[in-house]
Amino acid sequence: MKDVQSQRDDRRIAIDKVGVKNVRFPVLIKTRDNGDQQTIAQIDMSVNLPHHFRGTHMSRFLEILNAHGRTIDREGFFQILREMRDRLRAEKSHLEMRFPYFIEKRAPVTGSKSLFDIEGIFIGEAHGPLPEAEGDRDVEFDFTLGVRVAVKTLCPCSREISEFGAHNQRGYMTVFIRFQGRYWIEDLVEIIESAASAPIYPLLKRPDEKFVTEQAYSNPRFVEDMVRGIALSLEADERVMWYSVDAENMESIHNHEAWAYIERDLTARRETHRRSGASRAQR
Amino acid sequence: MKDVQSQRDDRRIAIDKVGVKNVRFPVLIKTRDNGDQQTIAQIDMSVNLPHHFRGTHMSRFLEILNAHGRTIDREGFFQILREMRDRLRAEKSHLEMRFPYFIEKRAPVTGSKSLFDIEGIFIGEAHGPLPEAEGDRDVEFDFTLGVRVAVKTLCPCSREISEFGAHNQRGYMTVFIRFQGRYWIEDLVEIIESAASAPIYPLLKRPDEKFVTEQAYSNPRFVEDMVRGIALSLEADERVMWYSVDAENMESIHNHEAWAYIERDLTARRETHRRSGASRAQR
Amino acid sequence: MKDVQSQRDDRRIAIDKVGVKNVRFPVLIKTRDNGDQQTIAQIDMSVNLPHHFRGTHMSRFLEILNAHGRTIDREGFFQILREMRDRLRAEKSHLEMRFPYFIEKRAPVTGSKSLFDIEGIFIGEAHGPLPEAEGDRDVEFDFTLGVRVAVKTLCPCSREISEFGAHNQRGYMTVFIRFQGRYWIEDLVEIIESAASAPIYPLLKRPDEKFVTEQAYSNPRFVEDMVRGIALSLEADERVMWYSVDAENMESIHNHEAWAYIERDLTARRETHRRSGASRAQR
Amino acid sequence: MKDVQSQRDDRRIAIDKVGVKNVRFPVLIKTRDNGDQQTIAQIDMSVNLPHHFRGTHMSRFLEILNAHGRTIDREGFFQILREMRDRLRAEKSHLEMRFPYFIEKRAPVTGSKSLFDIEGIFIGEAHGPLPEAEGDRDVEFDFTLGVRVAVKTLCPCSREISEFGAHNQRGYMTVFIRFQGRYWIEDLVEIIESAASAPIYPLLKRPDEKFVTEQAYSNPRFVEDMVRGIALSLEADERVMWYSVDAENMESIHNHEAWAYIERDLTARRETHRRSGASRAQR
Repeated sequence: MKDVQSQRDDRRIAIDKVGVKNVRFPVLIKTRDNGDQQTIAQIDMSVNLPHHFRGTHMSRFLEILNAHGRTIDREGFFQILREMRDRLRAEKSHLEMRFPYFIEKRAPVTGSKSLFDIEGIFIGEAHGPLPEAEGDRDVEFDFTLGVRVAVKTLCPCSREISEFGAHNQRGYMTVFIRFQGRYWIEDLVEIIESAASAPIYPLLKRPDEKFVTEQAYSNPRFVEDMVRGIALSLEADERVMWYSVDAENMESIHNHEAWAYIERDLTARRETHRRSGASRAQR
Repeated sequence: MKDVQSQRDDRRIAIDKVGVKNVRFPVLIKTRDNGDQQTIAQIDMSVNLPHHFRGTHMSRFLEILNAHGRTIDREGFFQILREMRDRLRAEKSHLEMRFPYFIEKRAPVTGSKSLFDIEGIFIGEAHGPLPEAEGDRDVEFDFTLGVRVAVKTLCPCSREISEFGAHNQRGYMTVFIRFQGRYWIEDLVEIIESAASAPIYPLLKRPDEKFVTEQAYSNPRFVEDMVRGIALSLEADERVMWYSVDAENMESIHNHEAWAYIERDLTARRETHRRSGASRAQR
Repeated sequence: MKDVQSQRDDRRIAIDKVGVKNVRFPVLIKTRDNGDQQTIAQIDMSVNLPHHFRGTHMSRFLEILNAHGRTIDREGFFQILREMRDRLRAEKSHLEMRFPYFIEKRAPVTGSKSLFDIEGIFIGEAHGPLPEAEGDRDVEFDFTLGVRVAVKTLCPCSREISEFGAHNQRGYMTVFIRFQGRYWIEDLVEIIESAASAPIYPLLKRPDEKFVTEQAYSNPRFVEDMVRGIALSLEADERVMWYSVDAENMESIHNHEAWAYIERDLTARRETHRRSGASRAQR
Repeated sequence: MKDVQSQRDDRRIAIDKVGVKNVRFPVLIKTRDNGDQQTIAQIDMSVNLPHHFRGTHMSRFLEILNAHGRTIDREGFFQILREMRDRLRAEKSHLEMRFPYFIEKRAPVTGSKSLFDIEGIFIGEAHGPLPEAEGDRDVEFDFTLGVRVAVKTLCPCSREISEFGAHNQRGYMTVFIRFQGRYWIEDLVEIIESAASAPIYPLLKRPDEKFVTEQAYSNPRFVEDMVRGIALSLEADERVMWYSVDAENMESIHNHEAWAYIERDLTARRETHRRSGASRAQR
């Protein structure tokens, strides 16, 4: 049977990314407390395509995914990236997964338990020379961890200028980091919630609702405050090498969103810090 | 060229609705102040299909739409329904349009002007005997008017139990009515906003923000209060023969929505009322 | 602490449905082959509210859900409906769940395995007199099973009139049934796929792609054919008491959808059939 | 009234972008044939915020938008960017608009007219020193034009290996360019459609449907072919300085999308070309 995809292409245009999008697949994610959590991911997979090939072999992405066990810890994630390079004979492979992820919450006063859903996001890339028999010695792997978490924000300006009350609303915080060492979804959620006017909960009894209402009123936050608060926590964490923070508030006095965004590469700062730390250590 | 759609079908199954969905088309909507407003509608069109035909002629829906002038007042809407019956030789035709619609707002203190977007919805049906040469004497037309409007709601329970503050949020109210006489999108928006803790605005300067914050705190509303308040206004309006009211709050202390819904047919009540009014008038 | 929700309401307007929407929760669904499948549901829960109460107690919905084990077989589903009636002191309770559900497929020629995702939908209602101490003798339960499945459709008209080729596309079929006895998601998927031009698969190698392409060309189907084909299968199945079939084609020659819809209540027909079957059995 | 936003901030974190998202607003877009087209845009507006200010003044974005006339030609677009810098005292301002845009199509055989909707996208940025009284001499403006257009693609592999037929589907092409001189939405749509297996149309009579079906069968295209074909046209156009091309196919044999992406900066090449052209001209 003819292999149209492998035909020679003379247009001299290499393709940055070619692959499949919006594949749904059940995955098992490792949790911070040494357990795991079954969820459903929406997955994008792609590779680069040199200019002399007409097409990639799309079915191989699905073969790799369906052959892989469902456990997607960091090693499993890199294993898929490695196989994409090998099976599709590409220099670069790119993998992205988004999935609902649940965190058990306890209401702040009554302690009532409920499952709080956030979105977890894994983005990874492998790049190196074209795969050869001798293995992938020179392949580099990048990994970006992301979460999208709903919180409560209460407007500092509205509180300041009003005799009573203050407008507040649900906001969605989306944070991505690149890091060294280990980092958990749960760690990022904690950082985000501690920067908000108040965390939110699926289940609140009346004493809890009183608590959250008053907590939010006592901690007013603009979207600007949200992104700065989260940024400060990430900058103080030596593991974090790069981050982006996106805060989107579903304003309750408007029918549009308020929005703020910061992105920083901390690599240079971390290296300086390590060198100076190292020289201090030597003294 | 063979007409596959007109082939005889022996499966003896009539089809309730067949047509096209998600057609985008520019339309001109009449406004209450005797003007008109250009917008973009998303349109669904369908007819019933007797059991002995294999298929409908889908292209005719698009022909009718593209041939019709863009002005969609009530008469134009019925004209499209009539042509759908005629051109597709069907007993029933069904037409639905959803479109962004703008209302000029003035901020409550500074009077700053801005354009507030809601969603307008027109749903209509024509039904009668199969179209014949002699016209559509026995055709009946139904029309349902709908709007979806964002408002601010502030929780009565949270306000009552908290020492300071109260959780509030953006809520979306969706109301449909069938009516006699004339009824405007703007009328429905006013009814909805007057039932809310406060209307919302695209543009608010600081004195306006103070006003809206305090107004909402002074008018706490559950979703249950929202649907009842809107229902009371509609029941008091003699033009309204049927309504449904849907209130969905994007709770700011949860990551799910609070929801309430009422639907009532007032036809019998209106008739009783008219009869008793008539008999009073005769005395 | 004051119970604002239980305050007396004098507006004399009962509310049809009040509750929570878009709650995400992990659930365990029973599969036809006696296994189970972990997935994430999006859940709506509501009850009716008599006119003399101001509000419902929203947190109880979340309490019931979080207290319930994750296994949602039919009995578990009814158990949640029963508790909603009891805990919220309502005559009617309503529960709806939508979740991704995976079916293992084998490619038609090479047998390559892959996981195919559809959407499963459970809708249920319990209604009866206000719950009292003596239990729920007179409570009735309704259950509706639904699925949304992607298939391939190839246009009979395009094939008939063209010298070569025929336009084809992905279509989404949404089917709901009420039934007696047992019925599985997998049963509905089979009925839907057998009515299509061809089933679709996440993973197809080249010989499979050839097979599916030719299979679709040999089985042209309008949306009208799709809904009739599925309807015929459901009418022939004595378990089915009511159904609706919705076919939506993402037309590849247009940027709108082609659509067809049928809904039938078979209760009367089934009873007649049973009586005549019973009388035959007596002879 | 206290100006909380202007308070001093000591966290030493500048914010890259702060503003409003998802504002809907009616706009008037210039068309290639010297007319204009009224449509509804979804708009994002933001500026950077120096580290020493606590917050931006969100209401000014809406003031600028509502004060601007609805005509958004290129000059009007830059005018908004300029006012955002000035009114919010920022070095950078960013503006993004997405809107439905209609192109009149004629069916290829019968010439039947219909309105075809695509998405138009304008993205712009102004950056320079902090605005001072003396005007914006050193401000630079960037502008990116984008469109998202539905087309028909037919799979070359499926056609080659199958005895009859070939799978085809609707695909969405999203192209962005930065350019010198003038460039119209309509120009981009033509480039995209000429790279497809066939353009698509809202209205096709039977002879047109035959034409499009056969045209697509005669012009098979992978997503890889689509992005390369569009890229070749853009590279041949001296006005284009940078482009990205994204092709997403709603595969009719799968329930996921096939995807390809190319992005190129041609600035260096254009300059070389101009210099060599200039030297040739001098000779």
